[in-house]
Amino acid sequence: MLIRSEFEIEFDLPQAVAMIGLLRLHPSLDDAIRGAEALHVEHIDGETVSPVQAGDYVDSFGNRCTRFLAPQGRLRLSGNSLVERDAFADPIATEARQHQIEELPTEVLQFLLSSRYCQVDSLSLVAGDLFGHTTPGWARAIWIRDWVHNHVRFDYASARPTKTALDVFTERVGVCRDFQHLAITFTRAMNIPARYVTGYLGDIRRPGSGPGDFSAWYEVFLDGQWWAMDARHNDGRMGRVLMAVGRDATDVAITTSFGVANLKKFVVESFEVDATGSKVPLPPKV
Amino acid sequence: MLIRSEFEIEFDLPQAVAMIGLLRLHPSLDDAIRGAEALHVEHIDGETVSPVQAGDYVDSFGNRCTRFLAPQGRLRLSGNSLVERDAFADPIATEARQHQIEELPTEVLQFLLSSRYCQVDSLSLVAGDLFGHTTPGWARAIWIRDWVHNHVRFDYASARPTKTALDVFTERVGVCRDFQHLAITFTRAMNIPARYVTGYLGDIRRPGSGPGDFSAWYEVFLDGQWWAMDARHNDGRMGRVLMAVGRDATDVAITTSFGVANLKKFVVESFEVDATGSKVPLPPKV
Amino acid sequence: MLIRSEFEIEFDLPQAVAMIGLLRLHPSLDDAIRGAEALHVEHIDGETVSPVQAGDYVDSFGNRCTRFLAPQGRLRLSGNSLVERDAFADPIATEARQHQIEELPTEVLQFLLSSRYCQVDSLSLVAGDLFGHTTPGWARAIWIRDWVHNHVRFDYASARPTKTALDVFTERVGVCRDFQHLAITFTRAMNIPARYVTGYLGDIRRPGSGPGDFSAWYEVFLDGQWWAMDARHNDGRMGRVLMAVGRDATDVAITTSFGVANLKKFVVESFEVDATGSKVPLPPKV
Amino acid sequence: MLIRSEFEIEFDLPQAVAMIGLLRLHPSLDDAIRGAEALHVEHIDGETVSPVQAGDYVDSFGNRCTRFLAPQGRLRLSGNSLVERDAFADPIATEARQHQIEELPTEVLQFLLSSRYCQVDSLSLVAGDLFGHTTPGWARAIWIRDWVHNHVRFDYASARPTKTALDVFTERVGVCRDFQHLAITFTRAMNIPARYVTGYLGDIRRPGSGPGDFSAWYEVFLDGQWWAMDARHNDGRMGRVLMAVGRDATDVAITTSFGVANLKKFVVESFEVDATGSKVPLPPKV
Repeated sequence: MLIRSEFEIEFDLPQAVAMIGLLRLHPSLDDAIRGAEALHVEHIDGETVSPVQAGDYVDSFGNRCTRFLAPQGRLRLSGNSLVERDAFADPIATEARQHQIEELPTEVLQFLLSSRYCQVDSLSLVAGDLFGHTTPGWARAIWIRDWVHNHVRFDYASARPTKTALDVFTERVGVCRDFQHLAITFTRAMNIPARYVTGYLGDIRRPGSGPGDFSAWYEVFLDGQWWAMDARHNDGRMGRVLMAVGRDATDVAITTSFGVANLKKFVVESFEVDATGSKVPLPPKV
Repeated sequence: MLIRSEFEIEFDLPQAVAMIGLLRLHPSLDDAIRGAEALHVEHIDGETVSPVQAGDYVDSFGNRCTRFLAPQGRLRLSGNSLVERDAFADPIATEARQHQIEELPTEVLQFLLSSRYCQVDSLSLVAGDLFGHTTPGWARAIWIRDWVHNHVRFDYASARPTKTALDVFTERVGVCRDFQHLAITFTRAMNIPARYVTGYLGDIRRPGSGPGDFSAWYEVFLDGQWWAMDARHNDGRMGRVLMAVGRDATDVAITTSFGVANLKKFVVESFEVDATGSKVPLPPKV
Repeated sequence: MLIRSEFEIEFDLPQAVAMIGLLRLHPSLDDAIRGAEALHVEHIDGETVSPVQAGDYVDSFGNRCTRFLAPQGRLRLSGNSLVERDAFADPIATEARQHQIEELPTEVLQFLLSSRYCQVDSLSLVAGDLFGHTTPGWARAIWIRDWVHNHVRFDYASARPTKTALDVFTERVGVCRDFQHLAITFTRAMNIPARYVTGYLGDIRRPGSGPGDFSAWYEVFLDGQWWAMDARHNDGRMGRVLMAVGRDATDVAITTSFGVANLKKFVVESFEVDATGSKVPLPPKV
Repeated sequence: MLIRSEFEIEFDLPQAVAMIGLLRLHPSLDDAIRGAEALHVEHIDGETVSPVQAGDYVDSFGNRCTRFLAPQGRLRLSGNSLVERDAFADPIATEARQHQIEELPTEVLQFLLSSRYCQVDSLSLVAGDLFGHTTPGWARAIWIRDWVHNHVRFDYASARPTKTALDVFTERVGVCRDFQHLAITFTRAMNIPARYVTGYLGDIRRPGSGPGDFSAWYEVFLDGQWWAMDARHNDGRMGRVLMAVGRDATDVAITTSFGVANLKKFVVESFEVDATGSKVPLPPKV
């Protein structure tokens, strides 16, 4: 299955500002790329479009980051990619066993720790109450994911930049990232490594659900590998396209601006295409 | 100047527990090591002492970590090192300039972000009020360090594992790590990278101040290098011996136990020795 | 000057629910009432409107409260009042002195304490930093009010029910009640009693500013009396009509529902009328 | 049964400071008083003891408060009382039914609201999860009390002045007041009025447990009356002597100082006496 993803973001910058973008695909997808995977950073002045000099680097999580000094005025970030993905929904691995801490790969250990939005230390006793009775491994990971899905309500208006897993636990309302932060925190508290993911998650082979956005989900480490989990959409989605992983949303902000940047345009799309590059139509809503 | 550091820690473990220790010296000190730099992980059963199998690894911050599965019963962690250090107090670099974000080494950028105990997002506007008028660079870093030193009171009884920089800012009382967390948060908020450090900081060429402990300080990145700062002891100490660096105390816990571990003994010492290995006497208190 | 105030609120109730309303004028206005001051609690079933039995009582703050059990279905709360108010803007009393604690009327002392949204204990040291240098009395109260006004930005979208003064201090954005909570907290921390107020604040003798709402402000106790302060609108408004006072928004919620109540209609208006009852036109925007 | 209670508290005051004390017995005990119920406020200067002028008043909760301006130097607060109490443990009223909100006495309604340390708004959904399945009334109140008792650990070292019910819920450790704050919050969230109480709770007809202190417990309103509950000591104590009630610890601080007051002495005792005034010996520890 071929997935094409595109975005176009524009900011107005009252003055020059340094920015970091995590807008490329994750290096783990390199073998799946079937067309240009490009990012354009451009300054727009009326009709004139000029490229902004940008440098790529890989951060400590293995994400492909882009840094640039955007000049005063209108900034456009755009990109697109074509990748091949299995035409399967998120795998179900009921036998995936939970590792003992001492046998985990060392690079995975950091995903057991507390982070800005995932206060494992504060929620570990609550997690024990709620999930201590569950079977270690896949069943436990699913139980946590579903608990969060069933106890938290989605509401765009409830988003705020400083919202933590503890806030989500008490307020029970949030956006994508909030669902994942709470699930990650509980998962780590039960000694299963969990990391935060951003990427594309379009409406693929399912009825359209409105304008696209970047999406957040998370991954748990069981039986020697990372498995995609999504406490918001826990219905077995297909077509996830990974952009970046980190401890939580802090590490993988789509763009970080070290100064004022006023968002003016934001369009994201991710959809299946056929071999000719044409968009595959979506099934109707029932 | 030769610094000898030693520690001995014992835990009672009601059952086997996986542990991670950051008890070695930081690799950046490798050239300064003048004697064995060793860590012993041992199980004690009455008179019998048997080694516990432990594996070393380097984490994403470059710290030398040790992981092991400690058996039920008494666990002893001990170690010592001998390093050569300059006989100078913490350097003062009044001309050290602040980098523009876009010119910072990319591996340093993560030390501008929020972390578990350093909520840059929550305290950035407060930081602007307090430090916006200061001169960028060294002067700003010092102003922040001294502000924290002068507004926070030390009290061992005020320690708690979940205390954040915001808590320190409102409560104005804390232990070593709390001073550093607040200073780090303000420093990052002013766009100067700052990282948390643990290590040995004995009473070196100064009157004794009581039983030793591991210490925490922080480093700021100015003019192309990291500089030691200490919002608790901001009087120009010498003899800092670096063990680990990270975003905050989460990353560099001396020991992390994935289960119950009851502390039974805790002795840490760091002191100057002469060429024969004898302890250099401390000056008297005036 | 005559002020007419009116409101109409409707809820859909999936099942019967007990409610408390603070929708009447404050008893301190009794002498100023120039027409019926009425509250209607009604159940609406298609064309049929039937009164809901409601009981009035006065709470410990002297507010006129109304309690009722609203039946399942559509509930309408409506009311209106006509009061005479001085045609002056909020008084300015530059000589109003600050009382020593020991000379304050005892019923005023409670307004020095911490409350749900006004954590005096957490913000007292911050208040000392910010306002310790100001002159006690009126000048200090104004300094606090203006500091909050100038450091907090209004944004309807930033409202949330659990937002505290400390949140407002760090986030620097809020709605009416948030401005007042932060100002109240700082004022109390400087030993000036401050209480939260709800009431009508229409566009009176000033250009219209859009649809009406209930408003929140606060009062400080100086020189033997309470003075109106408004950290959001600190430009000397006239025509405030007091409904209820309390420690903070907890005490004076317009309506408190002990069960689900979905808001369906919300219209509030407060305006000047002439002796014939006709609305006095507003001046144009310049 | 006759209970004699005594206390002696001393402060050093670097300068004159206004103070409020809630150190008298609650007026509801007036009929039970069998001897002087006295409070002495005294300034001590070497051998000279002089009374400090103090005024009594009753606050909005009906508590007997004392206010005074203590001069610079040593301040002594002392008092004692003799009251008759039933020789029964805390009553058990398994049939006590929960009121509908609309039938509660209006003066009780305030004890359903959030307060400084009891964030009903933040914990109401958690309460629903934990206690939604319980039977309304006495059974529910007991379930909450016991849940808190069983999930929170007592530790004097964990006390801090700003600790809230939410903190207790996540940290699971606290002192008297913390246990009660969490239980009060959950109880209110389940629509049962609950208020915070301070008083004497000596070792009466039970083995001694060490030096005395003032104690905190709480009361729930069921079946037309207030019932004592104690989430810390939930083993049916006798000899509770009520001093003050309020929404939470904010309202009933034993002493509130509006300035620096350094505690120098603190002795509290409450014990049974026989008709001759002699202390009744305690049973031995088994």
